[in-house]
Amino acid sequence: MNTYLGENFLLHSEPARSLYHQYAEHEPIFDYHCHLSPKEILEDTRFDTITQVWLSGDHYKWRLMRACGVPEEYITGQADPYEKFLHWARTVENSIGNPLYDWTHLELKNYFGATKLLSEKTAPEIWEQCSQKLAEPGFSARGLIQRSGVKALCTTDDPTDDLSVHRALARDGSFSVRVLPAFRPETALHPEQKNFVRWTEKLSQVSGLPVTSLSQLEDALEKRAVFFRENGCLMADQSLLSPDFLSGTRAEAEQAFLKALSGKELTPYEQNAYQTQLLLSLGRIYHRAGFAMQLHLGVLRNCNSRLFPTTGPDAGFDSVGDGVSAASLALFFDALDRTGELPPTVLYSLNSGDEDKLSSLLGCFQEGMFPQKMQLGAPWWFCDHQEGMRKQMKALANVGLLSGFIGMLTDSRSFLSYARHEYFRRVLCDLLGSWMEQGDIPADRELIGPMARNICYRNAAVYFKL
Amino acid sequence: MNTYLGENFLLHSEPARSLYHQYAEHEPIFDYHCHLSPKEILEDTRFDTITQVWLSGDHYKWRLMRACGVPEEYITGQADPYEKFLHWARTVENSIGNPLYDWTHLELKNYFGATKLLSEKTAPEIWEQCSQKLAEPGFSARGLIQRSGVKALCTTDDPTDDLSVHRALARDGSFSVRVLPAFRPETALHPEQKNFVRWTEKLSQVSGLPVTSLSQLEDALEKRAVFFRENGCLMADQSLLSPDFLSGTRAEAEQAFLKALSGKELTPYEQNAYQTQLLLSLGRIYHRAGFAMQLHLGVLRNCNSRLFPTTGPDAGFDSVGDGVSAASLALFFDALDRTGELPPTVLYSLNSGDEDKLSSLLGCFQEGMFPQKMQLGAPWWFCDHQEGMRKQMKALANVGLLSGFIGMLTDSRSFLSYARHEYFRRVLCDLLGSWMEQGDIPADRELIGPMARNICYRNAAVYFKL
Amino acid sequence: MNTYLGENFLLHSEPARSLYHQYAEHEPIFDYHCHLSPKEILEDTRFDTITQVWLSGDHYKWRLMRACGVPEEYITGQADPYEKFLHWARTVENSIGNPLYDWTHLELKNYFGATKLLSEKTAPEIWEQCSQKLAEPGFSARGLIQRSGVKALCTTDDPTDDLSVHRALARDGSFSVRVLPAFRPETALHPEQKNFVRWTEKLSQVSGLPVTSLSQLEDALEKRAVFFRENGCLMADQSLLSPDFLSGTRAEAEQAFLKALSGKELTPYEQNAYQTQLLLSLGRIYHRAGFAMQLHLGVLRNCNSRLFPTTGPDAGFDSVGDGVSAASLALFFDALDRTGELPPTVLYSLNSGDEDKLSSLLGCFQEGMFPQKMQLGAPWWFCDHQEGMRKQMKALANVGLLSGFIGMLTDSRSFLSYARHEYFRRVLCDLLGSWMEQGDIPADRELIGPMARNICYRNAAVYFKL
Repeated sequence: MNTYLGENFLLHSEPARSLYHQYAEHEPIFDYHCHLSPKEILEDTRFDTITQVWLSGDHYKWRLMRACGVPEEYITGQADPYEKFLHWARTVENSIGNPLYDWTHLELKNYFGATKLLSEKTAPEIWEQCSQKLAEPGFSARGLIQRSGVKALCTTDDPTDDLSVHRALARDGSFSVRVLPAFRPETALHPEQKNFVRWTEKLSQVSGLPVTSLSQLEDALEKRAVFFRENGCLMADQSLLSPDFLSGTRAEAEQAFLKALSGKELTPYEQNAYQTQLLLSLGRIYHRAGFAMQLHLGVLRNCNSRLFPTTGPDAGFDSVGDGVSAASLALFFDALDRTGELPPTVLYSLNSGDEDKLSSLLGCFQEGMFPQKMQLGAPWWFCDHQEGMRKQMKALANVGLLSGFIGMLTDSRSFLSYARHEYFRRVLCDLLGSWMEQGDIPADRELIGPMARNICYRNAAVYFKL
Repeated sequence: MNTYLGENFLLHSEPARSLYHQYAEHEPIFDYHCHLSPKEILEDTRFDTITQVWLSGDHYKWRLMRACGVPEEYITGQADPYEKFLHWARTVENSIGNPLYDWTHLELKNYFGATKLLSEKTAPEIWEQCSQKLAEPGFSARGLIQRSGVKALCTTDDPTDDLSVHRALARDGSFSVRVLPAFRPETALHPEQKNFVRWTEKLSQVSGLPVTSLSQLEDALEKRAVFFRENGCLMADQSLLSPDFLSGTRAEAEQAFLKALSGKELTPYEQNAYQTQLLLSLGRIYHRAGFAMQLHLGVLRNCNSRLFPTTGPDAGFDSVGDGVSAASLALFFDALDRTGELPPTVLYSLNSGDEDKLSSLLGCFQEGMFPQKMQLGAPWWFCDHQEGMRKQMKALANVGLLSGFIGMLTDSRSFLSYARHEYFRRVLCDLLGSWMEQGDIPADRELIGPMARNICYRNAAVYFKL
Repeated sequence: MNTYLGENFLLHSEPARSLYHQYAEHEPIFDYHCHLSPKEILEDTRFDTITQVWLSGDHYKWRLMRACGVPEEYITGQADPYEKFLHWARTVENSIGNPLYDWTHLELKNYFGATKLLSEKTAPEIWEQCSQKLAEPGFSARGLIQRSGVKALCTTDDPTDDLSVHRALARDGSFSVRVLPAFRPETALHPEQKNFVRWTEKLSQVSGLPVTSLSQLEDALEKRAVFFRENGCLMADQSLLSPDFLSGTRAEAEQAFLKALSGKELTPYEQNAYQTQLLLSLGRIYHRAGFAMQLHLGVLRNCNSRLFPTTGPDAGFDSVGDGVSAASLALFFDALDRTGELPPTVLYSLNSGDEDKLSSLLGCFQEGMFPQKMQLGAPWWFCDHQEGMRKQMKALANVGLLSGFIGMLTDSRSFLSYARHEYFRRVLCDLLGSWMEQGDIPADRELIGPMARNICYRNAAVYFKL
């Protein structure tokens, strides 16, 4: 019988244990998609309290607290840090079965040596333990990254960013971890956001190009992509609900951009035409820049209009959307592929019901360029739990190639989230190990071990040309 | 190796067994949603044959019989009760793997002490056993409820009901089980039904208010809700396919109601506008009345027009629909939440593919009022089987809080269906026990036991303010 | 611990093993849906290389090779057969977890006695082994069918086929396996295909009837159905994305046919109206002809327009579509059922997310004619793997009757694919056996054994009236 959080946590068979400890555990981490602040890394920020590290920006935790009936004051409000921590501790007690229960305890154990289960009762002791540790020299932003075995990480950056922080980090010989920018033209794709017009003006300024038409917008974005590339960028990313690539023309998109620039609200049809045409152009830009393209699709954002004015976006009011259309996406990929301009693509859908479908669709655009050009991305956000991981890996195995999977990322704003890589590696090895144990695949460690190892680090390093 | 229907049926690990026997088994039942007849409870109805109890209104069984090729005469027709039972026995033999196979045998064992498997061969003996038992004193409607450990139950009642039966039951000191009404304005939401106009007239009569416009309909419904509340009602309920909350205005809804009142058929768009506006008003009425709101969504009713004239509705010709839209439902919840009028809501979708999505959507509307205000309901109808239960509980655990789950209900017309609570409790304990056994959660009985116990009874009692 | 591909491969419990070896393993095969060439069977074709048998038409393999980065030349191009085999061997090494890994090794073991795992290293030896075997007398088309234990198989045939090959096979006393035609009016349903007009001319010619209107098309198709029936045909089949049965009138369909005949492209709406009306007529034709109707729905074909001109259709560029609508399909079934013209129907959806929904919908149209008239078909194409099989069988068990399931088919163009029946039988017995082992169903071999056996062969033989 395994012990919760013990050495063999989540490893339910002997082959799983040996795969993990021999092949997976000690692989380096390439965290190719996260939301860490490069500035905090450059400044090697320190943290006063565990509340600051854990609760200041983590909307996953905020949602659980709300579900537990915690008043907003102790979540996003002005309450005392210790009070907020106490409310989180009470929430944790009630969240058995949720991945945050496991992440919380893995982080407490790995970074703070705290092995008691967090609860209202243990909260004072654990607060104390964390505070002491946070005061130690190794507990800065850089220290936390380094002790996690990270070799490289990609932040998420706006095209208007001057990347001065990344350049300073690249010049800084004292920090061995590569911190690379990633190109995320999120605002360009969302004209419904308040800062859209101001953002186009800023883009025009940093690129030195006019941005008064869709084509000019694209030219400016390409110029920035080239600049990002020169500063080590390997990939782009964007997140959307799910545009309908079956409708909307280039001319309509051009009109829509002008309308948005004039500060008017777009109709859903206009927004769709605009997103479709811009995404096609971005795909071509990425192809020329040698970027991989990440598509985060199927998210329904900001569902709660009562709290939005107070909390703003990314505050725990987002939801899984109604799924991503294969027919529509097929048109998008085909339009780029037809002219040889489809970049290597990692597709994430927030609706895990899409996985088998999307896995089969991606298979229509694989080609001789390099193995697994089209990737079904790791389980995203609401899908990022044990079961979601198993489901995504099975979808890959059943319809494609599990062996070429580029594996895990944290997608996190926190310097403690590397525990998610450990969590993923345990689940991966458990899945492969259970198949070996049952004789469903060859029980050959020399065959399966390297496969597990590659999924932990090497596949991603090769895929993104690290 | 466990024995089928034995003491440890469905309990596949030691922790599962001890959770069930120590924490779950003996909890009382609060059957907060069922279709029992309060009149039969008041009159303490007795049953002549097992056919009457089992086959007179159970369209779950009718479907299986049809799938087995049983002619309609032996299902909803005029055949002899024993012949119908024999056909059911033959059907049971062929339904291994279906939840009805298990429910049937649990009911035979728990109520009639019949432990043989039902088949054509054992049918005569089991018929005899059941007939003898049904003649015993304890086998009346009340007797069956009491021996099942039921503490309270909520029936399903039309707003025009005068609740005289419920009031008589409340006055009757000889029956200790609370029998509460639930507010189900089903006909109000379905103007396509033949009895719609007549129903509005009856509503006008019992409420003493005119019902000639949508606003008047709402006023009359609110008056009845208040009356229901005064008679112990704690919740409302309705079932629908899935209105599109993205389209249709108040004015269109008002016009649609007038059209329906005049006996004309509504277009799908008009019906949608009407349902949307009425549901919004009902949500506000429930908020003011202090009701919890149950939404049963995603059902496609009366698919078989050949048999409808003979069998009428609820005869086994309903289907899982095409799913419930998160984007649409988000608008509905947000419209109520924005003004602080969103009542505690239990959402059931008949399409189990929706669960992860809806679980994440509900999380956007949790708040400090009380824990788990927004509930993903227990697996409904076609989802109500072992696998469906595991799936729903995992969706809850992965994206929300399993510990706050209000648990099981029978949704049944039969006095023997309490076996479904036992079935659910075994599956719940098996799920938690397997996690403990594997070390995926702490193997701490004092932590997990109370959680299991609360899901069996207490969470629902608190949630609905029993 | 089981051994990969050993005697008890995929049989994880003792009851599973005994079910398989005592009840399932030696049942004959009725391969009621495949794409074998009747001409190759008549001519008893021989194969020069394993490449010819395995890689000349198998787009499942082609997709995996593309995902592994193999250049098209070695897939559908002119490369040397041994080189192609070598690339496939390298691909196999990387496809652990994919059903093709298992099928490949089962076929190597069962037909060629090759028990080593295929890889770049073992490729030369295995090539040699296969080549030697293929030169032996029993390794012709007929030999491979016979040694697989096949009792009967149904090919897939165009209505314009003169069935001379099938008639020659029927007259040929030297081949004991029944080779029956199946009626597949695929081109009739797809006016967007280039050969549509030519095909209607051919239909007119072989039927001796004019085909200048929709009604005439239907008459000609019915005449051919009768002809097929006289030549042993038991069933029809067609594959589609998923027509919307909620829109489009007969008049619109008639106009659409005339437009298509004139060589013009139909709008999606016209195509939909046409497919709907023709499918309704086909259903009635099948009813009169005594055919079972197979519907393969939810496939999105030819997604890759860059490679289509080179490879043509069925080359590995198809995808799971966006799902099949229950509401729409309910109308289709109801329209046929209302007049007593709904034939026994086997419904396959390529989107496995549809299974619970469709299983419940089919239950609305079961009736006394014979057991399990409406069948949820075996997992199709991208769903045809261990997990897909378990999922489909659970959907059947949970919502319908697993015991009446007509079981597996190969759907294959290859004479080696009968291994898929073995694979299916192992998974079936493992599922039932695990339930017995756990005590979730009675551990009674005499109850469960015949159920397993019937699913392997007898249910299909009875269902299709073989």
